[in-house]
Amino acid sequence: MKLYSSLGPNPRLVRMFLVEKGIEVERIHLDIITGENRSDDYAKKNVMQTTPTLELDDGTLLTESTVICEYLEEIQPNPVLIGSTPEERAETRRWARRIDQEIAVPMTMGFRGGGGRPMFEPRMNVVSTEAAAELSAMSDKHWLWLDAQLGDKDHICNDKLTLADLVAFCFIKFGGTVGWSLPDGADNLTRFAAKMEERDSAAIWRGEE
Amino acid sequence: MKLYSSLGPNPRLVRMFLVEKGIEVERIHLDIITGENRSDDYAKKNVMQTTPTLELDDGTLLTESTVICEYLEEIQPNPVLIGSTPEERAETRRWARRIDQEIAVPMTMGFRGGGGRPMFEPRMNVVSTEAAAELSAMSDKHWLWLDAQLGDKDHICNDKLTLADLVAFCFIKFGGTVGWSLPDGADNLTRFAAKMEERDSAAIWRGEE
Repeated sequence: MKLYSSLGPNPRLVRMFLVEKGIEVERIHLDIITGENRSDDYAKKNVMQTTPTLELDDGTLLTESTVICEYLEEIQPNPVLIGSTPEERAETRRWARRIDQEIAVPMTMGFRGGGGRPMFEPRMNVVSTEAAAELSAMSDKHWLWLDAQLGDKDHICNDKLTLADLVAFCFIKFGGTVGWSLPDGADNLTRFAAKMEERDSAAIWRGEE
Repeated sequence: MKLYSSLGPNPRLVRMFLVEKGIEVERIHLDIITGENRSDDYAKKNVMQTTPTLELDDGTLLTESTVICEYLEEIQPNPVLIGSTPEERAETRRWARRIDQEIAVPMTMGFRGGGGRPMFEPRMNVVSTEAAAELSAMSDKHWLWLDAQLGDKDHICNDKLTLADLVAFCFIKFGGTVGWSLPDGADNLTRFAAKMEERDSAAIWRGEE
Protein backbone atom coordinates (compact mmCIF):
# COMPACT_ATOMS: atom_id res chain seq x y z
CA MET A 1 0.00 0.00 0.00
CA LYS A 2 1.09 3.56 -0.79
CA LEU A 3 -0.25 6.64 0.97
CA TYR A 4 -0.26 10.00 -0.78
CA SER A 5 -0.29 12.51 2.04
CA SER A 6 0.46 16.15 2.78
CA LEU A 7 0.06 18.74 5.49
CA GLY A 8 -3.50 19.09 6.75
CA PRO A 9 -5.85 17.39 9.17
CA ASN A 10 -7.17 14.66 6.88
CA PRO A 11 -3.90 13.08 5.69
CA ARG A 12 -2.52 13.38 9.19
CA LEU A 13 -5.60 11.65 10.58
CA VAL A 14 -4.86 8.64 8.39
CA ARG A 15 -1.19 8.76 9.38
CA MET A 16 -2.09 8.74 13.09
CA PHE A 17 -4.53 5.90 12.48
CA LEU A 18 -1.77 3.91 10.74
CA VAL A 19 0.64 4.46 13.65
CA GLU A 20 -2.03 3.42 16.16
CA LYS A 21 -2.66 0.28 14.09
CA GLY A 22 1.05 -0.43 13.72
CA ILE A 23 0.67 -0.57 9.93
CA GLU A 24 3.60 0.66 7.86
CA VAL A 25 3.01 1.91 4.34
CA GLU A 26 5.13 3.60 1.72
CA ARG A 27 4.36 7.29 1.90
CA ILE A 28 4.58 9.90 -0.83
CA HIS A 29 4.52 13.46 0.44
CA LEU A 30 2.82 16.03 -1.75
CA ASP A 31 3.62 19.68 -1.11
CA ILE A 32 0.15 21.26 -1.23
CA ILE A 33 1.60 24.75 -0.70
CA THR A 34 3.35 24.60 -4.06
CA GLY A 35 0.42 22.62 -5.49
CA GLU A 36 2.01 19.20 -6.10
CA ASN A 37 -1.50 17.74 -5.66
CA ARG A 38 -2.74 19.81 -8.62
CA SER A 39 -0.83 17.75 -11.20
CA ASP A 40 -2.58 15.79 -13.96
CA ASP A 41 -0.86 12.64 -12.73
CA TYR A 42 -2.37 12.99 -9.26
CA ALA A 43 -5.79 13.86 -10.73
CA LYS A 44 -5.73 10.39 -12.30
CA LYS A 45 -5.42 8.93 -8.81
CA ASN A 46 -7.89 11.29 -7.12
CA VAL A 47 -10.33 13.28 -9.23
CA MET A 48 -10.81 15.85 -6.45
CA GLN A 49 -7.00 16.17 -6.05
CA THR A 50 -7.42 16.04 -2.30
CA THR A 51 -5.14 14.25 0.12
CA PRO A 52 -4.93 11.57 1.37
CA THR A 53 -5.22 8.83 -1.24
CA LEU A 54 -4.40 5.23 -0.38
CA GLU A 55 -3.22 3.12 -3.32
CA LEU A 56 -3.59 -0.61 -2.78
CA ASP A 57 -1.13 -3.11 -4.23
CA ASP A 58 -3.58 -3.99 -7.02
CA GLY A 59 -3.89 -0.33 -7.99
CA THR A 60 -7.26 0.31 -6.30
CA LEU A 61 -7.42 3.89 -5.09
CA LEU A 62 -9.19 4.89 -1.88
CA THR A 63 -9.89 8.47 -0.83
CA GLU A 64 -11.54 10.36 2.05
CA SER A 65 -9.78 10.13 5.39
CA THR A 66 -12.43 8.41 7.50
CA VAL A 67 -13.22 6.01 4.65
CA ILE A 68 -9.57 4.98 4.47
CA CYS A 69 -9.61 4.47 8.25
CA GLU A 70 -12.68 2.21 7.92
CA TYR A 71 -10.80 0.20 5.29
CA LEU A 72 -7.72 -0.16 7.50
CA GLU A 73 -9.90 -1.30 10.41
CA GLU A 74 -11.48 -3.94 8.18
CA ILE A 75 -8.19 -5.37 6.92
CA GLN A 76 -6.57 -5.19 10.35
CA PRO A 77 -9.14 -5.16 13.16
CA ASN A 78 -6.68 -4.87 16.04
CA PRO A 79 -6.14 -2.71 17.95
CA VAL A 80 -9.80 -1.79 17.62
CA LEU A 81 -10.23 1.91 16.74
CA ILE A 82 -13.76 1.92 15.34
CA GLY A 83 -15.47 -0.92 17.16
CA SER A 84 -15.68 -4.65 17.64
CA THR A 85 -19.49 -4.91 17.45
CA PRO A 86 -22.01 -3.25 15.11
CA GLU A 87 -23.25 -1.14 18.05
CA GLU A 88 -19.76 -0.02 19.03
CA ARG A 89 -18.95 0.85 15.43
CA ALA A 90 -22.19 2.83 15.18
CA GLU A 91 -21.22 4.83 18.27
CA THR A 92 -17.78 5.70 16.92
CA ARG A 93 -19.15 6.56 13.49
CA ARG A 94 -21.85 8.71 15.03
CA TRP A 95 -19.31 10.87 16.86
CA ALA A 96 -16.84 10.93 13.99
CA ARG A 97 -19.60 12.12 11.64
CA ARG A 98 -20.91 14.73 14.05
CA ILE A 99 -17.42 16.18 14.48
CA ASP A 100 -16.88 16.00 10.72
CA GLN A 101 -20.13 17.72 9.81
CA GLU A 102 -20.71 20.12 12.65
CA ILE A 103 -17.12 21.16 13.31
CA ALA A 104 -14.62 20.09 10.65
CA VAL A 105 -16.67 21.14 7.60
CA PRO A 106 -17.50 24.69 8.77
CA MET A 107 -13.98 25.08 10.23
CA THR A 108 -12.41 24.01 6.92
CA MET A 109 -14.73 26.20 4.83
CA GLY A 110 -14.06 29.08 7.21
CA PHE A 111 -10.30 28.61 6.88
CA ARG A 112 -10.38 28.30 3.08
CA GLY A 113 -12.40 31.50 2.72
CA GLY A 114 -10.55 33.27 5.55
CA GLY A 115 -6.88 32.83 6.52
CA GLY A 116 -6.28 30.23 3.83
CA ARG A 117 -7.86 32.33 1.09
CA PRO A 118 -4.67 33.23 -0.86
CA MET A 119 -3.94 29.52 -1.30
CA PHE A 120 -7.44 28.14 -1.79
CA GLU A 121 -9.32 30.81 -3.77
CA PRO A 122 -7.49 30.08 -7.05
CA ARG A 123 -7.99 26.34 -6.55
CA MET A 124 -11.60 25.73 -5.52
CA ASN A 125 -14.94 27.30 -4.61
CA VAL A 126 -14.49 29.31 -1.44
CA VAL A 127 -17.03 31.44 0.41
CA SER A 128 -16.66 35.20 0.95
CA THR A 129 -14.54 36.55 3.79
CA GLU A 130 -17.74 37.46 5.66
CA ALA A 131 -19.31 34.02 5.27
CA ALA A 132 -15.98 32.44 6.23
CA ALA A 133 -15.97 34.40 9.50
CA GLU A 134 -19.50 33.18 10.24
CA LEU A 135 -18.58 29.57 9.54
CA SER A 136 -15.51 29.80 11.77
CA ALA A 137 -17.62 31.26 14.57
CA MET A 138 -20.20 28.49 14.12
CA SER A 139 -17.48 25.88 14.26
CA ASP A 140 -16.20 27.41 17.52
CA LYS A 141 -19.70 27.18 19.03
CA HIS A 142 -19.79 23.52 18.07
CA TRP A 143 -16.36 22.93 19.63
CA LEU A 144 -17.89 24.19 22.89
CA TRP A 145 -20.81 21.81 22.39
CA LEU A 146 -18.36 18.95 21.96
CA ASP A 147 -16.49 20.10 25.05
CA ALA A 148 -19.70 19.80 27.08
CA GLN A 149 -20.37 16.36 25.63
CA LEU A 150 -16.86 15.20 26.51
CA GLY A 151 -17.15 16.39 30.11
CA ASP A 152 -14.51 14.81 32.32
CA LYS A 153 -14.09 11.72 30.18
CA ASP A 154 -10.76 10.84 28.55
CA HIS A 155 -12.36 9.72 25.30
CA ILE A 156 -15.28 10.91 23.22
CA CYS A 157 -17.02 7.55 23.14
CA ASN A 158 -16.76 3.84 23.95
CA ASP A 159 -14.45 4.59 26.93
CA LYS A 160 -11.38 4.07 24.79
CA LEU A 161 -9.39 5.58 21.96
CA THR A 162 -11.44 5.63 18.76
CA LEU A 163 -11.47 7.25 15.36
CA ALA A 164 -13.68 9.97 16.88
CA ASP A 165 -10.86 11.03 19.25
CA LEU A 166 -8.39 11.08 16.37
CA VAL A 167 -10.69 13.23 14.20
CA ALA A 168 -11.19 15.75 17.01
CA PHE A 169 -7.48 15.83 17.88
CA CYS A 170 -6.39 16.27 14.25
CA PHE A 171 -8.65 19.27 13.77
CA ILE A 172 -7.47 20.81 17.03
CA LYS A 173 -3.86 20.31 15.93
CA PHE A 174 -4.56 21.55 12.42
CA GLY A 175 -6.04 24.71 13.91
CA GLY A 176 -2.83 25.16 15.87
CA THR A 177 -0.84 25.21 12.62
CA VAL A 178 -2.91 28.09 11.22
CA GLY A 179 -3.13 30.39 14.20
CA TRP A 180 -6.39 29.11 15.69
CA SER A 181 -6.88 27.69 19.14
CA LEU A 182 -9.77 26.12 21.02
CA PRO A 183 -12.32 28.73 22.13
CA ASP A 184 -12.24 30.01 25.70
CA GLY A 185 -13.97 27.63 28.03
CA ALA A 186 -13.12 24.45 26.14
CA ASP A 187 -11.25 23.14 29.16
CA ASN A 188 -12.27 19.54 28.67
CA LEU A 189 -10.99 19.48 25.12
CA THR A 190 -7.78 21.25 26.18
CA ARG A 191 -7.14 18.50 28.73
CA PHE A 192 -8.13 15.83 26.17
CA ALA A 193 -5.72 17.27 23.57
CA ALA A 194 -2.85 17.40 26.08
CA LYS A 195 -3.38 13.74 26.86
CA MET A 196 -3.63 12.76 23.19
CA GLU A 197 -0.39 14.69 22.59
CA GLU A 198 1.44 12.09 24.70
CA ARG A 199 0.61 9.26 22.30
CA ASP A 200 3.35 8.04 19.95
CA SER A 201 1.03 8.66 17.02
CA ALA A 202 0.91 12.40 17.84
CA ALA A 203 4.60 12.67 16.91
CA ILE A 204 3.67 12.99 13.24
CA TRP A 205 2.41 16.50 14.05
CA ARG A 206 5.96 17.48 14.98
CA GLY A 207 7.39 16.55 11.58
CA GLU A 208 7.66 18.88 8.60
CA GLU A 209 5.55 16.67 6.35
CA MET B 1 -36.30 -1.89 16.54
CA LYS B 2 -38.06 1.48 16.60
CA LEU B 3 -37.32 4.33 14.20
CA TYR B 4 -37.99 7.92 15.21
CA SER B 5 -38.41 9.73 11.92
CA SER B 6 -39.86 12.91 10.46
CA LEU B 7 -39.92 14.92 7.27
CA GLY B 8 -36.47 15.70 5.89
CA PRO B 9 -33.78 14.02 3.82
CA ASN B 10 -32.02 12.14 6.60
CA PRO B 11 -34.92 10.23 8.16
CA ARG B 12 -36.26 9.50 4.71
CA LEU B 13 -32.87 8.17 3.64
CA VAL B 14 -33.05 5.60 6.44
CA ARG B 15 -36.65 4.77 5.51
CA MET B 16 -35.70 4.17 1.88
CA PHE B 17 -32.75 2.06 3.02
CA LEU B 18 -35.10 -0.04 5.19
CA VAL B 19 -37.51 -0.58 2.27
CA GLU B 20 -34.64 -1.59 -0.03
CA LYS B 21 -33.45 -4.04 2.63
CA GLY B 22 -36.95 -5.36 3.25
CA ILE B 23 -36.63 -4.63 6.97
CA GLU B 24 -39.78 -3.61 8.81
CA VAL B 25 -39.54 -1.56 11.97
CA GLU B 26 -41.98 0.19 14.22
CA ARG B 27 -41.95 3.85 13.24
CA ILE B 28 -42.73 6.87 15.37
CA HIS B 29 -43.37 10.02 13.39
CA LEU B 30 -42.24 13.29 14.95
CA ASP B 31 -43.72 16.50 13.59
CA ILE B 32 -40.65 18.72 13.31
CA ILE B 33 -42.71 21.67 12.08
CA THR B 34 -44.49 21.88 15.44
CA GLY B 35 -41.25 20.85 17.19
CA GLU B 36 -42.14 17.41 18.54
CA ASN B 37 -38.42 16.59 18.33
CA ARG B 38 -37.65 19.43 20.76
CA SER B 39 -39.17 17.64 23.75
CA ASP B 40 -37.15 16.67 26.81
CA ASP B 41 -38.17 13.06 26.30
CA TYR B 42 -36.71 12.97 22.83
CA ALA B 43 -33.56 14.78 24.00
CA LYS B 44 -32.96 11.79 26.27
CA LYS B 45 -32.90 9.60 23.17
CA ASN B 46 -30.91 11.98 20.97
CA VAL B 47 -28.95 14.81 22.57
CA MET B 48 -28.94 16.80 19.32
CA GLN B 49 -32.73 16.26 18.94
CA THR B 50 -32.21 15.43 15.28
CA THR B 51 -34.04 12.76 13.34
CA PRO B 52 -33.68 9.88 12.68
CA THR B 53 -32.92 7.87 15.80
CA LEU B 54 -33.00 4.08 15.73
CA GLU B 55 -33.79 2.45 19.06
CA LEU B 56 -32.68 -1.18 19.31
CA ASP B 57 -34.64 -3.75 21.30
CA ASP B 58 -32.12 -3.53 24.15
CA GLY B 59 -32.56 0.26 24.33
CA THR B 60 -29.35 1.16 22.48
CA LEU B 61 -29.87 4.39 20.55
CA LEU B 62 -28.27 5.01 17.17
CA THR B 63 -28.28 8.35 15.38
CA GLU B 64 -26.99 9.88 12.13
CA SER B 65 -28.60 8.62 8.95
CA THR B 66 -25.59 7.06 7.19
CA VAL B 67 -24.42 5.52 10.46
CA ILE B 68 -27.80 3.83 10.93
CA CYS B 69 -27.59 2.56 7.34
CA GLU B 70 -24.13 1.07 8.07
CA TYR B 71 -25.62 -0.67 11.10
CA LEU B 72 -28.53 -2.08 9.08
CA GLU B 73 -26.11 -3.36 6.43
CA GLU B 74 -24.09 -5.10 9.14
CA ILE B 75 -27.06 -6.86 10.72
CA GLN B 76 -28.59 -7.73 7.37
CA PRO B 77 -26.02 -7.77 4.56
CA ASN B 78 -28.45 -8.60 1.72
CA PRO B 79 -29.35 -7.03 -0.59
CA VAL B 80 -25.95 -5.34 -0.53
CA LEU B 81 -26.29 -1.55 -0.43
CA ILE B 82 -22.85 -0.54 0.85
CA GLY B 83 -20.57 -3.31 -0.36
CA SER B 84 -19.61 -6.95 -0.06
CA THR B 85 -15.84 -6.41 0.09
CA PRO B 86 -13.75 -3.83 1.97
CA GLU B 87 -12.87 -2.18 -1.36
CA GLU B 88 -16.50 -1.99 -2.49
CA ARG B 89 -17.56 -0.57 0.86
CA ALA B 90 -14.77 2.02 0.63
CA GLU B 91 -16.04 3.09 -2.80
CA THR B 92 -19.63 3.54 -1.57
CA ARG B 93 -18.51 5.33 1.57
CA ARG B 94 -16.25 7.61 -0.45
CA TRP B 95 -19.13 8.78 -2.61
CA ALA B 96 -21.62 8.97 0.23
CA ARG B 97 -19.21 11.15 2.20
CA ARG B 98 -18.38 13.41 -0.74
CA ILE B 99 -22.08 14.01 -1.38
CA ASP B 100 -22.64 14.53 2.34
CA GLN B 101 -19.81 17.01 2.82
CA GLU B 102 -19.66 18.84 -0.49
CA ILE B 103 -23.37 18.98 -1.26
CA ALA B 104 -25.66 18.03 1.61
CA VAL B 105 -23.92 20.08 4.32
CA PRO B 106 -23.78 23.41 2.41
CA MET B 107 -27.27 22.77 0.99
CA THR B 108 -28.66 22.13 4.48
CA MET B 109 -26.88 25.12 6.02
CA GLY B 110 -28.06 27.25 3.11
CA PHE B 111 -31.64 26.11 3.62
CA ARG B 112 -31.59 26.63 7.37
CA GLY B 113 -30.23 30.17 7.03
CA GLY B 114 -32.35 30.90 3.93
CA GLY B 115 -35.82 29.57 3.15
CA GLY B 116 -35.95 27.51 6.34
CA ARG B 117 -34.89 30.43 8.55
CA PRO B 118 -38.23 31.04 10.33
CA MET B 119 -38.23 27.43 11.55
CA PHE B 120 -34.53 26.91 12.24
CA GLU B 121 -33.28 30.24 13.59
CA PRO B 122 -35.00 29.87 16.98
CA ARG B 123 -33.73 26.28 17.26
CA MET B 124 -30.07 26.22 16.29
CA ASN B 125 -27.08 28.19 15.02
CA VAL B 126 -27.85 29.35 11.51
CA VAL B 127 -25.74 31.52 9.21
CA SER B 128 -26.86 34.93 7.90
CA THR B 129 -29.13 35.20 4.88
CA GLU B 130 -26.14 36.31 2.80
CA ALA B 131 -23.92 33.41 3.87
CA ALA B 132 -26.86 31.03 3.32
CA ALA B 133 -27.18 32.22 -0.28
CA GLU B 134 -23.48 31.60 -0.84
CA LEU B 135 -23.68 28.11 0.63
CA SER B 136 -26.69 27.24 -1.53
CA ALA B 137 -24.84 28.47 -4.61
CA MET B 138 -21.78 26.43 -3.66
CA SER B 139 -23.94 23.36 -3.18
CA ASP B 140 -25.42 23.89 -6.67
CA LYS B 141 -21.92 24.03 -8.17
CA HIS B 142 -21.14 20.76 -6.46
CA TRP B 143 -24.34 19.18 -7.79
CA LEU B 144 -23.03 20.02 -11.26
CA TRP B 145 -19.71 18.42 -10.35
CA LEU B 146 -21.56 15.28 -9.28
CA ASP B 147 -23.55 15.38 -12.50
CA ALA B 148 -20.31 15.29 -14.48
CA GLN B 149 -19.00 12.43 -12.35
CA LEU B 150 -22.20 10.45 -12.89
CA GLY B 151 -22.06 10.89 -16.68
CA ASP B 152 -24.27 8.39 -18.47
CA LYS B 153 -24.12 5.81 -15.72
CA ASP B 154 -27.25 4.63 -13.88
CA HIS B 155 -25.54 4.56 -10.49
CA ILE B 156 -22.97 6.72 -8.77
CA CYS B 157 -20.59 3.86 -8.02
CA ASN B 158 -20.10 0.10 -8.04
CA ASP B 159 -22.45 -0.27 -11.08
CA LYS B 160 -25.40 -0.92 -8.79
CA LEU B 161 -27.71 0.72 -6.29
CA THR B 162 -25.79 1.84 -3.22
CA LEU B 163 -26.15 4.11 -0.23
CA ALA B 164 -24.48 6.83 -2.34
CA ASP B 165 -27.40 6.79 -4.81
CA LEU B 166 -29.88 6.96 -1.95
CA VAL B 167 -28.12 9.92 -0.33
CA ALA B 168 -28.05 11.83 -3.62
CA PHE B 169 -31.68 11.01 -4.40
CA CYS B 170 -32.93 11.97 -0.94
CA PHE B 171 -31.30 15.40 -1.13
CA ILE B 172 -32.68 15.97 -4.63
CA LYS B 173 -36.16 15.00 -3.37
CA PHE B 174 -35.79 17.07 -0.21
CA GLY B 175 -34.91 20.08 -2.38
CA GLY B 176 -38.11 19.47 -4.31
CA THR B 177 -40.15 19.78 -1.11
CA VAL B 178 -38.73 23.26 -0.37
CA GLY B 179 -38.89 24.89 -3.79
CA TRP B 180 -35.41 23.99 -5.04
CA SER B 181 -34.58 22.00 -8.12
CA LEU B 182 -31.41 20.66 -9.68
CA PRO B 183 -29.38 23.44 -11.37
CA ASP B 184 -29.64 23.89 -15.13
CA GLY B 185 -27.41 21.47 -16.94
CA ALA B 186 -27.68 18.65 -14.39
CA ASP B 187 -29.19 16.40 -17.05
CA ASN B 188 -27.50 13.24 -15.84
CA LEU B 189 -28.82 13.69 -12.33
CA THR B 190 -32.29 14.53 -13.67
CA ARG B 191 -32.30 11.23 -15.57
CA PHE B 192 -30.87 9.43 -12.53
CA ALA B 193 -33.58 10.87 -10.25
CA ALA B 194 -36.36 9.90 -12.66
CA LYS B 195 -35.08 6.32 -12.68
CA MET B 196 -34.75 6.22 -8.89
CA GLU B 197 -38.30 7.54 -8.63
CA GLU B 198 -39.55 4.25 -10.11
CA ARG B 199 -38.22 2.21 -7.20
CA ASP B 200 -40.72 0.99 -4.61
CA SER B 201 -38.66 2.66 -1.90
CA ALA B 202 -39.24 6.09 -3.48
CA ALA B 203 -42.94 5.82 -2.56
CA ILE B 204 -42.17 7.08 0.94
CA TRP B 205 -41.60 10.52 -0.60
CA ARG B 206 -45.24 10.57 -1.64
CA GLY B 207 -46.53 10.10 1.92
CA GLU B 208 -47.32 12.88 4.36
CA GLU B 209 -44.85 11.68 6.98
